[in-house]
Amino acid sequence: MNAQTGRITMRATAHANANIALIKYWGKADESLIIPNASSLSLTIDGLGTTTQVAFETGASHSSQHQLGDTLIIDGERHQGSALRRVSAFLDVIREMSGVRSAATVISRNTVPYAAGLASSASAFAALAVAGSRAAGLELNDCDLSRLARRGSGSASRSLFAGLAVWHAGHDDASSYAEPLSSLMAPVSSAAQAGQRVMHKDAVTEFGMNLAMVVVLISDTQKRVSSRDAMRRSVDTSMLYAPWIAMCRSQMQQALAAVGDGDFDALGAIAEANSYGMHATMMTAEPALLYWQPSTVEALHAVEDVRAEGMHAWATMDAGPNVKVLTTVQDAERVRRALQERLPQLTVQVHKAGDGAQILDEEMDI
Amino acid sequence: MNAQTGRITMRATAHANANIALIKYWGKADESLIIPNASSLSLTIDGLGTTTQVAFETGASHSSQHQLGDTLIIDGERHQGSALRRVSAFLDVIREMSGVRSAATVISRNTVPYAAGLASSASAFAALAVAGSRAAGLELNDCDLSRLARRGSGSASRSLFAGLAVWHAGHDDASSYAEPLSSLMAPVSSAAQAGQRVMHKDAVTEFGMNLAMVVVLISDTQKRVSSRDAMRRSVDTSMLYAPWIAMCRSQMQQALAAVGDGDFDALGAIAEANSYGMHATMMTAEPALLYWQPSTVEALHAVEDVRAEGMHAWATMDAGPNVKVLTTVQDAERVRRALQERLPQLTVQVHKAGDGAQILDEEMDI
Repeated sequence: MNAQTGRITMRATAHANANIALIKYWGKADESLIIPNASSLSLTIDGLGTTTQVAFETGASHSSQHQLGDTLIIDGERHQGSALRRVSAFLDVIREMSGVRSAATVISRNTVPYAAGLASSASAFAALAVAGSRAAGLELNDCDLSRLARRGSGSASRSLFAGLAVWHAGHDDASSYAEPLSSLMAPVSSAAQAGQRVMHKDAVTEFGMNLAMVVVLISDTQKRVSSRDAMRRSVDTSMLYAPWIAMCRSQMQQALAAVGDGDFDALGAIAEANSYGMHATMMTAEPALLYWQPSTVEALHAVEDVRAEGMHAWATMDAGPNVKVLTTVQDAERVRRALQERLPQLTVQVHKAGDGAQILDEEMDI
Repeated sequence: MNAQTGRITMRATAHANANIALIKYWGKADESLIIPNASSLSLTIDGLGTTTQVAFETGASHSSQHQLGDTLIIDGERHQGSALRRVSAFLDVIREMSGVRSAATVISRNTVPYAAGLASSASAFAALAVAGSRAAGLELNDCDLSRLARRGSGSASRSLFAGLAVWHAGHDDASSYAEPLSSLMAPVSSAAQAGQRVMHKDAVTEFGMNLAMVVVLISDTQKRVSSRDAMRRSVDTSMLYAPWIAMCRSQMQQALAAVGDGDFDALGAIAEANSYGMHATMMTAEPALLYWQPSTVEALHAVEDVRAEGMHAWATMDAGPNVKVLTTVQDAERVRRALQERLPQLTVQVHKAGDGAQILDEEMDI
């Protein structure tokens, strides 16, 4: 305890990478707990992430501090308004779990080579969940960390894990969490006995870490309609929403089988089809949601072309105009060059499969 | 009978306009008879049409003439191969109905201000049905003419009629035909008695003839995948195909109600939503069908913009990259100018509601 102020400061810093969904999360069954309508599958990627430090100052004056409110600094800029409210609501979950009642200072830095529009809330809330829970003195296991991250942003639940991760939709707070895809794989011996696919857990991990995303950056300006609002509009108004969810469930099973078979192109084709399904659902919302830009179509045709030339490349898009191209580490540079050649005006970059979230530093000032 | 050759030539010339569907026809229940899975609604437009002359030479040598085969000349160019086979198969239906057994010479001219890609098979087979049946000596009523035109190209069934036309899906050759939308409207007196909408048949006709399409021409090159093949792929592989058909049925009812209410913007919103639904179905086919070009997205955003400025303008697209904008005759020129301003590199033209198919000329050389 600081003799002059009576304060104890607990501080933790964590880093998390972004992830790109191969089977998308699009639409909530529970808006407040962020329980999705279908399970999703993603690839965590390197080079697009968030480093966040959370500091809780506890001590004599903690209750008044909380009333003073949390402080949020992103990339050197202090944020108020809706961004701060969202972070404070998330910190309230941590305060509830830990009994810490003081305000927090959150300092976040996006380690991205370009500005925004690329799964930033996934890495942001994954890093915040890890740093915030640790700063509050909590020791959470992966499952509970994933559940916590989910409360900030659904896709953040998956960014805790390296490579391929599955977010189980579940039906309540306890059952809705992500885990590495390899955790779902049966051990070799039991699978062989049951006549099932015999891909080893380690082989699945390796398959995932051998994937890469070539990102075609089309726009980094903020979207006109947030993902949250766009999801809600899709759920509420698209006549294709229910069939889209059925499509996700069926494609998830197909994707797991493709990974089990070690069949990259099967996985790619399913991921591309699932992405088109999500955009089909958006464009049949009322009013229609069209995140695409002219260059989006150019990039999609370019992906078709490079695939026709024999490269392993499959397109996926999220709630924005950017096109992400699933490929393998081996092919990534060749795919990047082929796309860059066709799209000279755009930024095209390779992101390999990335690590899970991790604590970088923690300290306590007394 | 020509004294030297023993031939009688029966000749008829007809003109038909193209039509643009507001509720789309996408997918067949019967491939050979061209029975669709859902009813459709279209606007016949002027300035994009086909004039076709059909001549049957009958007489002593007709059976050998048929073996020699039909002759097809489109825009001054003689066609063989698949185009001729499709026309000959259609002429076989007429020969079957009429008992005429001789070969035909078909001379067709597309009265379009630009090359192609705009509902050309609708006007082509509507004109061919009218001219061919008359040249074969048949006197068909509108319903039977529509059924006949349908055998050549589904959407041709609607091009026989001026303004708004409904193609009833039906379930067999007899029940699948188009008619003017106004024919579906109850007379004022009976509708009023039943407490229904009281828009008069003539008012519905007027409402339809007061519509216009502003066509944004993005490409007139031939599509890589024909509509026929694309439909089949959608039916066979899209997980959203069945819900798309349910969507069409529901939107058809909504569209009829909007016309009954004389509510242009309601009709426009339904037409735009239906078009996005069709493209949603295409892009979820496997492999995905993406007819859009970069400028397609530019044009779609431009339509959103001009609507946000208070103009009555709704986008619809077919199996190609071009964007057609539904508006009213009053607003058409203002919408055209606003779109042309935003899309200076593209051709933007107004097409008003057009007339039905008609016989221009018929003669018999003996």
